[in-house]
Amino acid sequence: MQTNPVKQLRVNLSVIAATIALWVTLLVTAPSMAHAQVSSTITKPVSSTPKTSVVNISITDSEVLDAQKAWGEALVNISTTYDQEGMAAARTLAKKVIDELYAYQSGLVLFKPTLTTGDQTFRTTRKGALSYFVGGDSSFPQDTGFALKGWRKVEIRNAGIFIDGNTATTMGNVDITDKTGKVTTVDKTWQFIKGNNGKLRIIVHHSSLPYSPK
Amino acid sequence: MQTNPVKQLRVNLSVIAATIALWVTLLVTAPSMAHAQVSSTITKPVSSTPKTSVVNISITDSEVLDAQKAWGEALVNISTTYDQEGMAAARTLAKKVIDELYAYQSGLVLFKPTLTTGDQTFRTTRKGALSYFVGGDSSFPQDTGFALKGWRKVEIRNAGIFIDGNTATTMGNVDITDKTGKVTTVDKTWQFIKGNNGKLRIIVHHSSLPYSPK
Amino acid sequence: MQTNPVKQLRVNLSVIAATIALWVTLLVTAPSMAHAQVSSTITKPVSSTPKTSVVNISITDSEVLDAQKAWGEALVNISTTYDQEGMAAARTLAKKVIDELYAYQSGLVLFKPTLTTGDQTFRTTRKGALSYFVGGDSSFPQDTGFALKGWRKVEIRNAGIFIDGNTATTMGNVDITDKTGKVTTVDKTWQFIKGNNGKLRIIVHHSSLPYSPK
Amino acid sequence: MQTNPVKQLRVNLSVIAATIALWVTLLVTAPSMAHAQVSSTITKPVSSTPKTSVVNISITDSEVLDAQKAWGEALVNISTTYDQEGMAAARTLAKKVIDELYAYQSGLVLFKPTLTTGDQTFRTTRKGALSYFVGGDSSFPQDTGFALKGWRKVEIRNAGIFIDGNTATTMGNVDITDKTGKVTTVDKTWQFIKGNNGKLRIIVHHSSLPYSPK
Repeated sequence: MQTNPVKQLRVNLSVIAATIALWVTLLVTAPSMAHAQVSSTITKPVSSTPKTSVVNISITDSEVLDAQKAWGEALVNISTTYDQEGMAAARTLAKKVIDELYAYQSGLVLFKPTLTTGDQTFRTTRKGALSYFVGGDSSFPQDTGFALKGWRKVEIRNAGIFIDGNTATTMGNVDITDKTGKVTTVDKTWQFIKGNNGKLRIIVHHSSLPYSPK
Repeated sequence: MQTNPVKQLRVNLSVIAATIALWVTLLVTAPSMAHAQVSSTITKPVSSTPKTSVVNISITDSEVLDAQKAWGEALVNISTTYDQEGMAAARTLAKKVIDELYAYQSGLVLFKPTLTTGDQTFRTTRKGALSYFVGGDSSFPQDTGFALKGWRKVEIRNAGIFIDGNTATTMGNVDITDKTGKVTTVDKTWQFIKGNNGKLRIIVHHSSLPYSPK
Repeated sequence: MQTNPVKQLRVNLSVIAATIALWVTLLVTAPSMAHAQVSSTITKPVSSTPKTSVVNISITDSEVLDAQKAWGEALVNISTTYDQEGMAAARTLAKKVIDELYAYQSGLVLFKPTLTTGDQTFRTTRKGALSYFVGGDSSFPQDTGFALKGWRKVEIRNAGIFIDGNTATTMGNVDITDKTGKVTTVDKTWQFIKGNNGKLRIIVHHSSLPYSPK
Repeated sequence: MQTNPVKQLRVNLSVIAATIALWVTLLVTAPSMAHAQVSSTITKPVSSTPKTSVVNISITDSEVLDAQKAWGEALVNISTTYDQEGMAAARTLAKKVIDELYAYQSGLVLFKPTLTTGDQTFRTTRKGALSYFVGGDSSFPQDTGFALKGWRKVEIRNAGIFIDGNTATTMGNVDITDKTGKVTTVDKTWQFIKGNNGKLRIIVHHSSLPYSPK
């Protein structure tokens, strides 16, 4: 019975402040209410529950920023693990990262990585995503392992964030710095959904190199 | 070009605070980053947009409290209009209230009023709701017009509120006071959906008298 | 890494039918397109993916009916377990039922049982729900264990169902028959949310005896 | 009283089929229920409402395909209007298209057009989108009017579609053919939200040229 589908939900009690505000308003305006036609609506917690509990399972701004940050840290982690511990460790870590940060459990992820081409552009399966990050899959012969390229820093510059209940989408630039100090900038869209334990997962990921006019 | 589906959405810029917090964290922890393995993820707005715009269309606590308050005020308004201006005016106002506060436009509202019975317990149509509030409909012979009973004050005491994106549900007691000072208390559940112009509407309304053991 | 937040999502391929329909339309209308101003939009799957995968995590009608049925079966199960195996077994089963069918993991459930009164009307905590179903909790002295009353059949007659993405609400009558054949009818509203493993859980439950005019 | 927030919602009665199926099951299994321990749960409509009304405001597959098609037709329309009626007419039409198909009313759209660069890559405002499509805005000196390039056909090949209540996202290739027969292919992600009158609008649009390895 340890099922825990929506565990980390915020219990937001800010409604109390609103209720207090209503009461203050009421007190201040009370004199004018001494006359006939007393018409008022008061919103307050039930007497037996000292404060109104509000459970809001909608995604918050900070959850979105945390989820973005987790992706950046995961990329750097795979790169440093590869450099320090080798391919097997990097591969194991990449699987863990994909299972924790992406939503392939849902049946598909709409993933367009930066450097894929042709019929293998879209990596809607976990297998396709793993190959993109660490290579070594003969089904995807052009993959050389994007996460193995010595990445050391990820900077996310959001152009905007859209939140709609249990899903949120971000768009902006992401600057990825490798161990030589070289910076690669991409245009990136992520859509997250709130999944197991209230954690966000990537359900859509569209990354592309900036357009350069010829 | 008058289409305006999601007009009053909140543009929440609190992400700026979170971004500042990240920067502060970064500065404070900077010394330890002077060594090798600099691994960091930074989240900040695009340089060309001085602040990240966040559009969050999820319902907020205060929107829920406002929607509850609007229902209470509408009930009192219909009662006082009836007392002061008569039946025709009360009926006209009741239609307006139903069209503005309920979501019958969606195809149905799950409405179980306090005092309905038998086959006419559930008022899933606008016609059934109007009859409950102001009576005068031969299809609903037992309706005497609940909103005409001289109500002067509505007090809402929430036991809890659940918010899930574009819908929110409240449960608690509502105390309704008439012009003689008599108070009627009901157990009430409302579910709201965010509709036209960002306004909340009632899609579910279950009201019942408190259980009294014999 | 077996995390599985949205496991049982439907992978709906009906888009294929729609795509075929578009193609047929195109073929039929092709002659008129032989002229200038050929203006058409075609929607079809990517050549490399023989069929478009559609993952739709919104709740379906049948999921709602299944969740209602699960509640009815659980009530009958607790009653028969109590009669056949005694209090301890019934209590253990009731805990399991609450943990599986209700969403107390979210922080609260808006639960107004049929027979509760006064300050203990609303059972927003798991403890309060358990006491209502099987009694034996000195904090709730009036509870005698609603689920222990010999229930043998549950019939749900929906007045309407409202579905909104990951949440759905039903309203209607529920007839509960005990082992003597006596039927109790209640007016009942349930709101479900899609939780762990794609299963629905009750987040709102308002049950009341039908109003009887004096 | 013209408010009409969720007008075109589908009223889906497929629950009737499910209910019939339950009844058939019940009849078939009835003999075995003649014994003790009759334990069953039946789900059916209320007697007074011959069929259960189900209102489901979640987006459907076909709504998504229609919204994609509308974008393609709009692009071709602007191009042909420009060729036949000139710049003023094309500009007027482009404004109409943006107001009807995009959700700038919400406060922002996350729009990364195919050919934008630098600080003007992301067009989160209506002004920026209009300039991209028809040019002529000195604030965006590099825009030459993407929709004016003689487009005659748009073909959308979806790699996948993700639907989550009132929002849906598609990813795939879009082939755009101009009047000379030249085809341009882009990788495209669209996220739609259900807005006014149940129509879908674009809240996220990320378009990029396919990656070409040097």
